[in-house]
Amino acid sequence: MPAVLKCEYAVRGEIVTLAQALQEELKSKPGSHSFDEILYCNIGNPQSLGQQPITFFREVLALCDHPSILDKSETRSLFSADAIKRARKILDQIPGRATGAYSHSQGIKGLRDTIAAGIEARDGFPADPNDIFLTDGASPAVHLMMQLLIRSEKDGILCPIPQYPLYSASIALRGGTLATGWGLEVSELKKQWADAKSKGITPRALVVINPGNPTGQVLAEKNQKEIVDFCKKEGLVLLADEVYQETVYVPEKKFHSFKKVARSMGYGEKDISVVSTHSVSKGYYGECGKRGGYMEVTGFVPEIREQIYKLASVNLCSNISGQILSSLVMSPPKVGDESYESFSAEKDGILSSLARRAKTLEDAFNTLEGVTCNKTGAMYLFPRVRLPEKAIKAAEAAKTTPDNFYCRRLLNATGIVFVPGSGFRQAPGTWHFRCTILPQEYKIPTVVSRLTEFHKSFMEEFRE
Amino acid sequence: MPAVLKCEYAVRGEIVTLAQALQEELKSKPGSHSFDEILYCNIGNPQSLGQQPITFFREVLALCDHPSILDKSETRSLFSADAIKRARKILDQIPGRATGAYSHSQGIKGLRDTIAAGIEARDGFPADPNDIFLTDGASPAVHLMMQLLIRSEKDGILCPIPQYPLYSASIALRGGTLATGWGLEVSELKKQWADAKSKGITPRALVVINPGNPTGQVLAEKNQKEIVDFCKKEGLVLLADEVYQETVYVPEKKFHSFKKVARSMGYGEKDISVVSTHSVSKGYYGECGKRGGYMEVTGFVPEIREQIYKLASVNLCSNISGQILSSLVMSPPKVGDESYESFSAEKDGILSSLARRAKTLEDAFNTLEGVTCNKTGAMYLFPRVRLPEKAIKAAEAAKTTPDNFYCRRLLNATGIVFVPGSGFRQAPGTWHFRCTILPQEYKIPTVVSRLTEFHKSFMEEFRE
Repeated sequence: MPAVLKCEYAVRGEIVTLAQALQEELKSKPGSHSFDEILYCNIGNPQSLGQQPITFFREVLALCDHPSILDKSETRSLFSADAIKRARKILDQIPGRATGAYSHSQGIKGLRDTIAAGIEARDGFPADPNDIFLTDGASPAVHLMMQLLIRSEKDGILCPIPQYPLYSASIALRGGTLATGWGLEVSELKKQWADAKSKGITPRALVVINPGNPTGQVLAEKNQKEIVDFCKKEGLVLLADEVYQETVYVPEKKFHSFKKVARSMGYGEKDISVVSTHSVSKGYYGECGKRGGYMEVTGFVPEIREQIYKLASVNLCSNISGQILSSLVMSPPKVGDESYESFSAEKDGILSSLARRAKTLEDAFNTLEGVTCNKTGAMYLFPRVRLPEKAIKAAEAAKTTPDNFYCRRLLNATGIVFVPGSGFRQAPGTWHFRCTILPQEYKIPTVVSRLTEFHKSFMEEFRE
Repeated sequence: MPAVLKCEYAVRGEIVTLAQALQEELKSKPGSHSFDEILYCNIGNPQSLGQQPITFFREVLALCDHPSILDKSETRSLFSADAIKRARKILDQIPGRATGAYSHSQGIKGLRDTIAAGIEARDGFPADPNDIFLTDGASPAVHLMMQLLIRSEKDGILCPIPQYPLYSASIALRGGTLATGWGLEVSELKKQWADAKSKGITPRALVVINPGNPTGQVLAEKNQKEIVDFCKKEGLVLLADEVYQETVYVPEKKFHSFKKVARSMGYGEKDISVVSTHSVSKGYYGECGKRGGYMEVTGFVPEIREQIYKLASVNLCSNISGQILSSLVMSPPKVGDESYESFSAEKDGILSSLARRAKTLEDAFNTLEGVTCNKTGAMYLFPRVRLPEKAIKAAEAAKTTPDNFYCRRLLNATGIVFVPGSGFRQAPGTWHFRCTILPQEYKIPTVVSRLTEFHKSFMEEFRE
């Protein structure tokens, strides 16, 4: 319970609660505010903002839910042929074709085979289905690893800042120590590590989110190699959060999994422990509500692997629809499949729209006084805002942080919901907010114009 | 990690691992054993053993997965009219009709309304949708409550024995103390409580599984009232595991929720904290793989409720298909609906078959030398077996417990998988095993004959 009190989760925190209250007010008293809708830019939840699911994936899920229609002639006119074929294949992989049964605690073996093959195709290095643990989204994988790694408050997890609050919350709940430092340069990581050691903390693992959340940065391969070497040298488990692997919007950057980087350096199972998490919630699919995901666990001795299995088995198994969807995102329709063209059109449509939205918002932020914003992968922008002294004082008087003060004012004036940078931690004296690129494309101009107008009047109000 | 090592989970433990190895052997070398299949009686996983899902539920799930077929004429011939209607209603309850979006952390409000209405109809007392937290099966609800209740190893959770290992595992993982005692008579509970206090432990909650797991017992209302009074007097949270509420096989027993019992005694929100967990995994539906469930949380002050909400929000939300299914099991087809007759036939078919299987197995156990077995609800029998001294010595020599020794021999000789009573804890010097009633009905005679034959030869072998 002290651990529970310590835990904080900004993505669903104060600003979001206020936004929900405003939404209720707009519903019960239309016209009560100067805006007519809440513009949610706070959470990576694409389908809540109108993004449509990928048809092929949903066809397969529906058929696996209700297999008794597979042989009906009407089904052939309602569903694509390859979706029917895929559903049959998946059902054959499930013992007793029972989509309503608990599976193996790691997930259905045949689906893990498919996922391992997808990882191999992506990385060019072997992947073992026995290393895959299917999970209800990526969060349970993070909690499981924290449960495993943290023995007491003397154990530390290195989380370069800014970080995603899932990690700080999970570490707090397990009673461990969050060891922080600024950014992912190895010189910074070394400082962070030495700082933890000097406080009597044993660093056990390093968390790297790539592409990043909240920053959206995509790591250069050189930086990844240095991180791998650092983890290998210090015996740190590398917790690689790779849920944004399919969303990189700048042609000069490319996603490389940390396992691939380690293998390409010649490091095998005995050299380094890497846990890669992935999820069906992000990417072009954005299936947050399905709670599907997996972790690939490599480089652990059998005794530890057994403990990981035991922890997975305490929750019996992850949900089967999420398991199926995880296998689909790692093995989508291929050239020649009936659905391939429509699938590609849906996928490319979503990804190119996201790229345009990212660019429009980035440009808009960079025109605002005192605001700087970097290019992005993932689903987020993390602009830095230099606030006037008078605004900082006003925040102090209102007993809150300057970034929270700004976000609250923004919300009340425009209906736009950002998450204050404090929720992710930020370098001392700097202020940021996280803004998703997910509102529907036709709403982006509204976000930009309302934000721009608000920002101008905010800066005027607090100008010294 | 010490907590992880301490955690044990017998339902997926040694005997099950051995069974899986035997199954592989039977596949790769047919005829390598005296039996040709493994008869799983170890886990409450009905659909893995051939139980068919309820058609109406799966129709609605499939339509919610792929709503774009709702308006097609072929859909009207493939799906029942009320399933189509229900899917439309559910989609209308979901903001943006987005089944692929994260929901409110407690679950979709409209579905919680339906569940609350179902609880009200069941109990005859009001239920508040804001008290409902939808979860991925019942396990996460248990973990969440343990996380909340346990502050240190000085906090104890009273778990009358035998208990389900989810509870001991969850308490161990949270670093709390499992306070045990024998059975649910209030005199026993008082002893258990006093014993914990004398060791410096603060009892925080009492776990009651009703109908019981592993025993299958259905509590008498009088006993429930005494338990409520005891919890009220000692300020204990009553953790009521009510996942077996739909499976009571004896006409003279009836399920009463603990909240209903408390309310019928005139106790309201301020008098007692009751957490009732339910799941889509059990009952006549047996949808384990869907990972749906909920907890109804009553009698907590707002500050604690806020912490419960925070913990729920760290995992964002439970899977939407599971949420939908939870609403369906609490609001199945009604008289007059197109599906009502076929639904009732499926439901009654499953429940009456389960009742026959329970009776056949119970009778069989009671004819075995030294074995006694009580009538049952839930999905389990928990026969007690009086083993010969020589068998107990042989177990000791084999460095295992007598019940484990028996179950291992049974498995190797017959392919039948029971869970040794040790996994649930048992009164000192007594030995049990848990046997599910879930193998398909036509297989029950095989279970009975193989078990009977084995038991006779086992008793002969170890007769003094």
